[in-house]
Amino acid sequence: MPLLRFDLAEGWSDTDLKSMLDVTHEVMVAAFKVSPRDRYQIVHEHRPTRMIIEDTGLGMKRTNKVVMLQITTRPRTKEAKQQFYASLAGELASRCGIPSSDLAVNFVTNADEDWSFGLGRAQFLTGEL
Amino acid sequence: MPLLRFDLAEGWSDTDLKSMLDVTHEVMVAAFKVSPRDRYQIVHEHRPTRMIIEDTGLGMKRTNKVVMLQITTRPRTKEAKQQFYASLAGELASRCGIPSSDLAVNFVTNADEDWSFGLGRAQFLTGEL
Amino acid sequence: MPLLRFDLAEGWSDTDLKSMLDVTHEVMVAAFKVSPRDRYQIVHEHRPTRMIIEDTGLGMKRTNKVVMLQITTRPRTKEAKQQFYASLAGELASRCGIPSSDLAVNFVTNADEDWSFGLGRAQFLTGEL
Repeated sequence: MPLLRFDLAEGWSDTDLKSMLDVTHEVMVAAFKVSPRDRYQIVHEHRPTRMIIEDTGLGMKRTNKVVMLQITTRPRTKEAKQQFYASLAGELASRCGIPSSDLAVNFVTNADEDWSFGLGRAQFLTGEL
Repeated sequence: MPLLRFDLAEGWSDTDLKSMLDVTHEVMVAAFKVSPRDRYQIVHEHRPTRMIIEDTGLGMKRTNKVVMLQITTRPRTKEAKQQFYASLAGELASRCGIPSSDLAVNFVTNADEDWSFGLGRAQFLTGEL
Repeated sequence: MPLLRFDLAEGWSDTDLKSMLDVTHEVMVAAFKVSPRDRYQIVHEHRPTRMIIEDTGLGMKRTNKVVMLQITTRPRTKEAKQQFYASLAGELASRCGIPSSDLAVNFVTNADEDWSFGLGRAQFLTGEL
């Protein structure tokens, strides 16, 4: 169920993008203990002038590989989120060559009644999930 | 006021898309009892590799007509949301030929002070709405 | 930290767009008292049929310069939001020629643990911010 929205600069190859999405999905499934088919990923690519990602004064240099990831999800603990940040940054660095300074993440939280996955039903309320 | 963000695959005709947006708007107005001019719809079209929508293991087969709809709104009841899911799935199937297994929806909730529709004012606070 | 997502119609020049983004950033920094490098702006441009922005019956006429701005942020007071709406509408009108009836804004609120700006860390929790 988490919905993952990725914003990034144009220029990713299909292979690199697929690898980044696959790794992110794997890390998400482990951190939030969801079904492997709980995969909802959307990618927005932008021209350089259409995406400005600075660093809040933290001294990180962003490259053209910067990924801004916004996740909408039911409630997750502080600990699970922190584990997700750390694990994702580590895996994207080691397996996809994305510097950990190029990954920014934010969460938006909603509730059980806020999801319908199809068939006009709210599956967290009906007991299907 | 609800803001509706639609993510879908490239390849919709203008006519089919307009019909889907019109029907969704109509259902939304009825379910949430808002003004007919409370229409804020944004469509993002994606190449197939840029949008992955699986099924959380519910056994639904998605087609290239899959619609992921994200709605930002002031609070709505559980009942109104469930009515919206059911009614939208039904209407999109019967009037637009979109399988009900191709419609996924999620809500994000905010508050009165979170909306300005123009003129620099928060119209839910000023009493204009 | 606020993440600003701008949806607008195709056709903006790079210069006009840059000016609009710069002014919005300046107003945001002043209203929310954040670091000047707290800049996270993403722009989505749409064909006219892909973005429908009406007026909730408020009698505003939208032009092809309409801007729908969605802001994800930690909690802000009602007063800070109202100041932001007013100030942004005023500055975009006077400095960018954008009618104040063409600016719609909405906020989504999250929490300290919901942000990682890089390096796999939640900087509002670690004390770095």
